[in-house]
Amino acid sequence: MNSLISDLIAIVGESGVLLGEDVAQRSVDWFTGAPCQAKAIVRPQTTEQLSKVMALCYQADQPVVTHGGLTGVVHGGIASPDELVVSLELMNQIEEIDAVGSTMQVQAGVTLQRVQEAAQEIDMQFPLDLGARGSCTIGGNIATNAGGIRVIRYGMMRQQVLGLEAVLSDGTVVSSLNKMLKNNAGYDVKQLFIGSEGTLGVVTRAVLRLQPYMPSEQTALVAVPSFDALTALLNLVSKELANSLSAFEALWNSHYKLMTMEGSKHAPLLSTDSPFYAIIETLGLDEEQDAEAFAQVLETAMEKELITDAVLANSSAQREGIWAVREDIEWLVRSLKPLFSFDISLPIPHMDEYVNNLEKALNEQFAESAEILVFGHLGDGNLHIMITVRDDSLQSRRQVEELVYGSLVKYNGSISAEHGVGLEKKEYLKLSRSPEEIDLMKRMKQALDPKGLLNPGKILG
Amino acid sequence: MNSLISDLIAIVGESGVLLGEDVAQRSVDWFTGAPCQAKAIVRPQTTEQLSKVMALCYQADQPVVTHGGLTGVVHGGIASPDELVVSLELMNQIEEIDAVGSTMQVQAGVTLQRVQEAAQEIDMQFPLDLGARGSCTIGGNIATNAGGIRVIRYGMMRQQVLGLEAVLSDGTVVSSLNKMLKNNAGYDVKQLFIGSEGTLGVVTRAVLRLQPYMPSEQTALVAVPSFDALTALLNLVSKELANSLSAFEALWNSHYKLMTMEGSKHAPLLSTDSPFYAIIETLGLDEEQDAEAFAQVLETAMEKELITDAVLANSSAQREGIWAVREDIEWLVRSLKPLFSFDISLPIPHMDEYVNNLEKALNEQFAESAEILVFGHLGDGNLHIMITVRDDSLQSRRQVEELVYGSLVKYNGSISAEHGVGLEKKEYLKLSRSPEEIDLMKRMKQALDPKGLLNPGKILG
Repeated sequence: MNSLISDLIAIVGESGVLLGEDVAQRSVDWFTGAPCQAKAIVRPQTTEQLSKVMALCYQADQPVVTHGGLTGVVHGGIASPDELVVSLELMNQIEEIDAVGSTMQVQAGVTLQRVQEAAQEIDMQFPLDLGARGSCTIGGNIATNAGGIRVIRYGMMRQQVLGLEAVLSDGTVVSSLNKMLKNNAGYDVKQLFIGSEGTLGVVTRAVLRLQPYMPSEQTALVAVPSFDALTALLNLVSKELANSLSAFEALWNSHYKLMTMEGSKHAPLLSTDSPFYAIIETLGLDEEQDAEAFAQVLETAMEKELITDAVLANSSAQREGIWAVREDIEWLVRSLKPLFSFDISLPIPHMDEYVNNLEKALNEQFAESAEILVFGHLGDGNLHIMITVRDDSLQSRRQVEELVYGSLVKYNGSISAEHGVGLEKKEYLKLSRSPEEIDLMKRMKQALDPKGLLNPGKILG
Repeated sequence: MNSLISDLIAIVGESGVLLGEDVAQRSVDWFTGAPCQAKAIVRPQTTEQLSKVMALCYQADQPVVTHGGLTGVVHGGIASPDELVVSLELMNQIEEIDAVGSTMQVQAGVTLQRVQEAAQEIDMQFPLDLGARGSCTIGGNIATNAGGIRVIRYGMMRQQVLGLEAVLSDGTVVSSLNKMLKNNAGYDVKQLFIGSEGTLGVVTRAVLRLQPYMPSEQTALVAVPSFDALTALLNLVSKELANSLSAFEALWNSHYKLMTMEGSKHAPLLSTDSPFYAIIETLGLDEEQDAEAFAQVLETAMEKELITDAVLANSSAQREGIWAVREDIEWLVRSLKPLFSFDISLPIPHMDEYVNNLEKALNEQFAESAEILVFGHLGDGNLHIMITVRDDSLQSRRQVEELVYGSLVKYNGSISAEHGVGLEKKEYLKLSRSPEEIDLMKRMKQALDPKGLLNPGKILG
C-alpha cells in the first residue's frame, strides 16, 4: 500500500477509504454505467477530516475529483486512475432546521429528497425539484447550480443557498454559513462555489432557504397546435397566473409519442397527434380559488385556440401520472440508444426555428438513422434535446455536437442551461462565453486552486 | 494642464471632463454634503471611451473611484485629491426592452425610477424599489447589490440581473450580457461585479429581468403590541399571504413618533403609543379577492391580538401616505443631528433583545443625550438603526459603532445588510466575516485588480 493511501486511512479510518473492486463497481455515468477508475475513493465523515485529506493531497500534488450523487450528465464525475475521488456520502446529516428563520443547515451529502421531506415535516417546502431528487445531493446541486422544474417560480439552486462551507484545494476551510436573507458585508464569496462544479473548492455544508408550503397544486397536460400557440400560452399563463405559476414544461410531439408508446409505462392521456404538449402547474394557498382560476385560464386558452385539448389532474395519482411522462428518463434512455443528450438555452422566440433547422441538418447528415426528441423547461428558455444517430462513434458524436451547439451561436444561446460543462462540453464553452469571460474564469481558478488539483480538466480544461 | 487630464479630454472630449469648481460643487455624501475632492470627474459616453480611460489610468497607476447616483450611505463615493472619479451619468440609455423575453438592457447610469417606469409602460414591473429611486442608478444598485422594500418577495438586485458588461482596471471589457434565465456555461462571472462596490470593475451595462405587473396592491399600517406579536404577525402573513406578500416593514415606536410629530409632514394615522408598527403590502392580480384575503388576515391578527389597530389604504394617495412615513429620510436626518446611521442584519428572534441591550448600553455611555430610532425590513432580518449622541466627534462615532457592531457578533449578525461596506464599515468587516472569507475576497481583488486601482481602500482597505 502506497503512502498516500495509508495517510488517508490514518485520517478517515479503514472504512473511509474504498479501493480496488469497491472503486470499480461504482459507476461514474448513469447513462453508460462506466466504472470509476480512481486510485481510491475517500469518504470523510467531517469537515475536519476532509480538510486534512485536502491538505495531504495539496502537499502531494494529488488531483481530486469530488463525487455527490453521481446523477450529473456532463461527465463531471469521471476520474482517471491517477486521480483520487472524494465522496461526501458519509456527510449526509440534516444539522439544523429553523422554522422561524425558514432555514435548514445540512451537510453536502444529504439527498435533495430528504431535504424536501424534512421541509414538509415542518409545513414548509424546499422548492428545488428535479427527476433525480432521490439520489442527487445538495452538494452536487450547489456545485452544478441545479435547475429543474420550478425555476420559473423559485429560481435555480443559487437562489436557495443562503450560506455554505467549502474546503479549498490546500485544505483551508471557508466557513460562510450565513443564515440571513441579506448580507452585504463584502464580496459574497459563496457565489464562487455555486455552479463551479467542484473546480474551486469542495462544498461541505450549506444553509438552505425554505419557502412557505403551498397546499394547493393544480396540474394540467394540454395539447398545443403550434409553436406560436405554445409561446402565446406561456405568455397568457405567466400573466394570468403570475402569483402561482410554478412550472411550464413543453413536450415536442416526438417526445410525447415515445414516452406514451406501447411498451412504455405511460398510456397517452391525450391523443398523440398534436405537435406540442405542455405541462402547466401552479402552487397556491386556496384550493377552490386556485382551481377556478386555473380552469378559467385553460378555458380562455381553449377559446383563443392556444390549446386543443386538456386533462386536469383531479388527484395526486393523476398528477404523478402527468409528471411521470415528463420524468421517465429511464425509458427514454432505453429507447433511444445510443443517446446523445443536450441541455441548451436560447431565447424562446427562436426555439422553433432552431429545432426545425437542427432536425433538417440531422436528416441531411444522417438520413434515416437520426432521431430527435425535444422537451424542456420552456418558461426558462431551456430545452433538453435527445438525439440518436444509432451510432456512438466519437466522430458521430462530434458531428451531432457541432450541429446542436454550432447553430446556437447566432441566437446567443448557451451550451449549458442547467447541466453544467464538465468534461463533455468544455470544448464548446467558447461558443457561449467570450474570451474575456473565459479569461476571468481562469483568473478565478488560478486564485483559488493555483495548483489545478480540483476536478482537473473540467469546465476550463 | 497635466498630461493625464489632456489625455482624458482627448478620449471623452472637453465636456466629458469636469475640473476645479465643477468637481467641488458635487457632493459625495448626501448626509453631510461633503464636496468631491477628486482631481477630475470623467464622464464617458460609451463603453469604448471608458475602456480607453481605464487603460490610460492603468498605465499611469491612477486610482479610480466610480460614481453612480451618489445616494450610498457608506462613503463609497469619497475620492481623495489624488483620485480620479469616473461618473456613468452620461451613459443613461435604456437600450432594449424585450417584452417576450421579459428583459431590459440598460446602460449603468440610468436611474432606477426610469427603469421602473419603462417596465410599467409595457405592462410589466421592475420590482427592486427603494427610497432613492429617483436618483440612484442601476450601476450603483448592481455595485452595492441594493435591497429595499420588496426583497422579501423578489430578492435583492443580484436576483434581478441576468447579464452585465463591466470594464476591468486595465481597460478590458468583459461583456456578459446574457439574456437567459438559465446559463450554466462555466462560472457565472457576473456575480463578481454584483455587490463588490466597484472594487473589481466598473459596471457599464446590464440586462435586467422584468416581472409580471401586479395590478392589485394592498397596503396597511398596523399597530403591534409587542415584539413577540410582531414576529407572530410576520409568520401569519408569510403563511396566509405567501403568494402575494411583497413587503413587511417594522417601525419601532421611537421611529414612528418622530416621523409623525408636529412639524413633520405626516399626521399619525394611528395613535403613537404602540410599541411597534408594521407596514404590510401585497401585490396580486385580483383586486377583489386580494382585498378580501388581506382584510381576512388582518382580522385574524386582530382576533389573535397580534395587532391592536390598523389602517388600510383605500386609495393610492393613502398608500403613498403610509409609505411616506417610512421613507421620509430627509426629515429623519434633519431631526436627528448629528446622525450615525446603521444597516444591520441578524436573525429575527434576537432582534428585540439586541435593540434593548443596545439602547441600555447607549444610555449608560451617553446618558440623556443618546437617542435611538429603529425601523427596517423585518421580513428580511434587516434593521436600520439611527442614533444620535448629539456629538459627531470621531471618538463618539467609534464608541457607538463598537456598541452597534460589537453586540452583533454573538448573533452571527451582519454589519451590512444592504448598504455595503465602503469606507465606513471596513474596520468592522472582520466581525461579520471569517479570516478565510476575507482572504478569499483579497484573492479575488488581487486576481481582478492587481494594481489596486479601483475604489482603493473601500471594503478591504
